[in-house]
Amino acid sequence: TIFEALAEMLAAPEPSALSGKTVVVTAGPTREKIDGVRYLSNYSSGKMGFAIAAEAARRGATVHLVSGPVTLPTPPGVQRHDAESAVEMLEAARPLFADCDLFIGAAAVADYRPETPVEGKIKKHDAEMELRLVRNPDILAEFSTNRKPGQLAVGFALETAGGIDYARRKLTDKKLDLVAFNIYDGTTSGFEVDTNVLTLLDRDGAITELPLLSKEEAAERLLDAIELLLPR
Amino acid sequence: TIFEALAEMLAAPEPSALSGKTVVVTAGPTREKIDGVRYLSNYSSGKMGFAIAAEAARRGATVHLVSGPVTLPTPPGVQRHDAESAVEMLEAARPLFADCDLFIGAAAVADYRPETPVEGKIKKHDAEMELRLVRNPDILAEFSTNRKPGQLAVGFALETAGGIDYARRKLTDKKLDLVAFNIYDGTTSGFEVDTNVLTLLDRDGAITELPLLSKEEAAERLLDAIELLLPR
Repeated sequence: TIFEALAEMLAAPEPSALSGKTVVVTAGPTREKIDGVRYLSNYSSGKMGFAIAAEAARRGATVHLVSGPVTLPTPPGVQRHDAESAVEMLEAARPLFADCDLFIGAAAVADYRPETPVEGKIKKHDAEMELRLVRNPDILAEFSTNRKPGQLAVGFALETAGGIDYARRKLTDKKLDLVAFNIYDGTTSGFEVDTNVLTLLDRDGAITELPLLSKEEAAERLLDAIELLLPR
Repeated sequence: TIFEALAEMLAAPEPSALSGKTVVVTAGPTREKIDGVRYLSNYSSGKMGFAIAAEAARRGATVHLVSGPVTLPTPPGVQRHDAESAVEMLEAARPLFADCDLFIGAAAVADYRPETPVEGKIKKHDAEMELRLVRNPDILAEFSTNRKPGQLAVGFALETAGGIDYARRKLTDKKLDLVAFNIYDGTTSGFEVDTNVLTLLDRDGAITELPLLSKEEAAERLLDAIELLLPR
């Protein structure tokens, strides 16, 4: 009957291009040990990455979530891999590179780590101290550089002001398919908050400015944009 | 009747020397901004300080809990004051100094902070970086040095190995009434875990080695020891 047909239409999930695909999402901050008790980190809460992983799973993808230290529950249907430092996150993510269709680097991986972490606890005696830092591996760039044709690479660019040029450079330099640029203003967008304002820049030059959205809605819109870039 | 007397005895809370006293407890880590998104911190979860605040309130004290960034609920009956950095924690604690009977420094206040925090986001270009750090204020020492007769000052000494001599020096140098020394072993004692092994050193030279306890039980034993030091 027409009623049954209608009911079926309303009940059936919209078919998603992500259904059956394998997605790797990194999320959260990393912590870089200074000594046994101290570390370097950043204000990432992991909420954006977790929202993306949850939405990708809802769309029928096999989802691996590689997470830094956060206090969020694992979304339903998502396989979680925990890591603390950037080096550990790369180790957790690398085995997942080969078999994924899509890699989304939503983690705020620390750019630098202390050169020589100390085993015990550094004693304070001096009025000043120098902390020598070295560069961390770039997990997204490592995936992007070594990927096979057809695998998509998506990144985030977080800037505290202006900065869309920086996002565009990231898209080009790392040969990404899409960059989600967001301004960290400490209130409605960026780290620790539940909302986000994203601007999506894709490999073809398209720019989509999204309004202020919950991170769940932002995840939906981001995945909508990514679905259009997936190989047919 | 004898039954009524018994029921009363069983129901009445044990009288506590802390009843009616004002207690200030600091708890948790501090975060020291490197720039708009990055910070220095440590692995303190705040659990020990929160357990002490909860137990002091249960014993009838007026409790101010000055907390760094943690993800713990405020214990019942406790007045909470939030702070992020060591400087902010001192600002939040200082107005409480004059009217308290007891100050317990359970926070893991960062010893150092970046000399010049940057407004936006430091750009990564170099393979290495130097972070110049300066000493933070010592909140417990500031209280201890400026306190009035009869006010008690209690601190924690966290060491990753050996270190009881360091705890003893802290007791003497800061003129504390009691130091709770605990070894950070990353598993049963110290940060992030739910248990603790404390050794209490008091101003009279008494040393009490507590067994492995939950942080709630450790808080009880610590407050028992402190009650003996309160002015009669």
